[in-house]
Amino acid sequence: MAGPLSDLHIVDLSTYVAGPSAALALAQLGADVVRIDPLGGATDTRRLPLAPDGTSLYWAGLNRYKRSVEVDLRTAQGRDLVRSLLACGGDGHGILITNAVGQSWLDYEDLRRSRPDLIMIHIAGRVDGKPAVDYTVNAEVGLPWLTGPSDSSAPVNHVLPAWDLLTGLHASLALVTADRERRRSGNGQYIRINLSDVAVTTMAHLGFIADAAVNGSQRLREGNYLYGSYGSDFATRDGRRVMVVALTARHWAKLVQLTGVGDVITALEHSLRVDFSQEQVRYEHRDVITALLTPWFAARAHADVVRELDDGQVLWGDYRRVDELGRHGDSPVSTSGLFVDVDQPGAGRYPVPRSALRTSGWEGPTPRPPARVGQDTADILQEWLQMPREKLVELQHAGVIAGASPRREGQLT
Amino acid sequence: MAGPLSDLHIVDLSTYVAGPSAALALAQLGADVVRIDPLGGATDTRRLPLAPDGTSLYWAGLNRYKRSVEVDLRTAQGRDLVRSLLACGGDGHGILITNAVGQSWLDYEDLRRSRPDLIMIHIAGRVDGKPAVDYTVNAEVGLPWLTGPSDSSAPVNHVLPAWDLLTGLHASLALVTADRERRRSGNGQYIRINLSDVAVTTMAHLGFIADAAVNGSQRLREGNYLYGSYGSDFATRDGRRVMVVALTARHWAKLVQLTGVGDVITALEHSLRVDFSQEQVRYEHRDVITALLTPWFAARAHADVVRELDDGQVLWGDYRRVDELGRHGDSPVSTSGLFVDVDQPGAGRYPVPRSALRTSGWEGPTPRPPARVGQDTADILQEWLQMPREKLVELQHAGVIAGASPRREGQLT
Repeated sequence: MAGPLSDLHIVDLSTYVAGPSAALALAQLGADVVRIDPLGGATDTRRLPLAPDGTSLYWAGLNRYKRSVEVDLRTAQGRDLVRSLLACGGDGHGILITNAVGQSWLDYEDLRRSRPDLIMIHIAGRVDGKPAVDYTVNAEVGLPWLTGPSDSSAPVNHVLPAWDLLTGLHASLALVTADRERRRSGNGQYIRINLSDVAVTTMAHLGFIADAAVNGSQRLREGNYLYGSYGSDFATRDGRRVMVVALTARHWAKLVQLTGVGDVITALEHSLRVDFSQEQVRYEHRDVITALLTPWFAARAHADVVRELDDGQVLWGDYRRVDELGRHGDSPVSTSGLFVDVDQPGAGRYPVPRSALRTSGWEGPTPRPPARVGQDTADILQEWLQMPREKLVELQHAGVIAGASPRREGQLT
Repeated sequence: MAGPLSDLHIVDLSTYVAGPSAALALAQLGADVVRIDPLGGATDTRRLPLAPDGTSLYWAGLNRYKRSVEVDLRTAQGRDLVRSLLACGGDGHGILITNAVGQSWLDYEDLRRSRPDLIMIHIAGRVDGKPAVDYTVNAEVGLPWLTGPSDSSAPVNHVLPAWDLLTGLHASLALVTADRERRRSGNGQYIRINLSDVAVTTMAHLGFIADAAVNGSQRLREGNYLYGSYGSDFATRDGRRVMVVALTARHWAKLVQLTGVGDVITALEHSLRVDFSQEQVRYEHRDVITALLTPWFAARAHADVVRELDDGQVLWGDYRRVDELGRHGDSPVSTSGLFVDVDQPGAGRYPVPRSALRTSGWEGPTPRPPARVGQDTADILQEWLQMPREKLVELQHAGVIAGASPRREGQLT
């Protein structure tokens, strides 16, 4: 079957990472996502990294599988058009994702007058209205002081916008749940998700807040060790790095066996009266374990380390550089089997993934370039609002809408 | 209304972060989640951080709002019990989340013989069956070489298990979508989600893979700078740190105004013939911007910096330490308003959050301690399987089930 959410018609008026990634996850499940793009595209359409022709590869990644209506959002007519797109249609319509701030024309109670069962997902920074982005909320939950080598004297930010991405998926889960509920009860829902709330509640789920409250938090920065169990990075003879983890007793047994440190470990266990098959014990003695294992890695070239770790069924990962994330033999881009090479006019040809969900019965959208800004303006206004052609031409000439492609059916000019 | 997913009855046979966080997100939306705990609890029930009495605060955080059935999963009778819990019940039953590896008694096709519309969410490491955990897949997608100060010579791991958490939310989104589809078509679904797939597809959504393929990736490690725009950390006179971001032209204008560098910036813009209101330009000139702004922060005490940044409407975040994540005046634990102090017998009293979703009409579960391992064994076998009391006693005496509390109704011994 086609994507299971193909009966959902979502208006996506969001920028940067959280909102667009929420809509992307839904589009990959088949939802019809209509981006509302301001004239010329929002600022994030020019965000780095860029292809040589100036196309934003970042924006392309997050905005694939969505259609685009290009509207002058500064005009009353443009805003009314968006409100009409939210008010129209049947069961699967009337759904908005937005991170727009302080836009009174998007007031939920006001929008509900035209569409009483509206579902609105409002992504924001903080509950008090103060702005926040991934990097500021990450600083506030304390992780940068726990990241990096133990002798660092400054906080170290993460590079993955994890809070944005988590907020996006919470938003998509909330949206599908709200639609499910609306189909049963007929009631819409306003759902506000603040980046700051997602960060601090997640820190609570992982035990950080309880640890601070109950123990005053004993956690220190400790480089690439894995807190609470055993995991460490090692350098190979030729200067490559691998991450090795022994989370379970079985992982640990395999690692000890491969590296031949069994006798020393047994002697240590006897003299210290501990059992290294317990993860807490491995964590406590992580420095001595690392010291014992380091020579094994330092004595071998990377290629041999890779082969032996695999053959020995050790849990490990290779430290790859992002520029190696192409179609190399053992890159996850190749081994996942999820990527399809896509030609994006102007930007070039590059691997684009299918959905990460491998299902027994669903088919997600086929990897393709994102819709250009305004590519679907005419189609959507005709489909959703049954707007007559003359009205489209009038709005286009007045500069309220833009972007109808001269080469596509439904062209306006 | 109660949680919108209160008609879902989910069997959660998962450990560590991804599976338990998936089930937690659903439980916070009202789903009835039944954890299957092996006798004495899985290894993650003893994971750090611990309360002084040995209770895992980590495990408590991820396993709240779930009921617990304690079963000897090594026995055929115990496995049959779990299979019965998956086969029983009406529309909202027949849903499994698991990260169990190589368990033939949990084979999807086999389970479907008793429950043809079963929904099974299978969380795994990699498509080829090789194990992977957050820290190994993170190494493989290249982020640790982009994290940390620009003069670092080694990879820097993240501390937040972001890939686990993202995988968990993808799983919860997939589950609700599968239930929605099943209610319409009657069809179940097998959904496999590999950590490695989530990581590499997310890297593609963010433009990393395209950048590598099209440009050979120009990204270098660059400390706490925000890639593609302007963001940097600054030290205050008294040695505290703040993260300051100018993502939009407005943020930039506010920052320039507050720090009084407007004239210098204008002169720079003229001489360089650039416009710093463009984020790409700010990114390109991040070092000179930081050099110009540093004295402002270095001249002021933290308390003054905080006040002036807030008054000046600058986008910023305070670098807090995790041990400051208690109920301090301006900690997000306090300011979010989401936390309730909960007494957890043995562990102590600490703040536990409500759901991060602020909704117009839903009520999530009230913060409370997690169910003890086996706390609901008798209740669930009676409710779900209508198991007679004699049978319960027999299974308990045979050691197949455990955990019925002697103080609760439905007690067995």
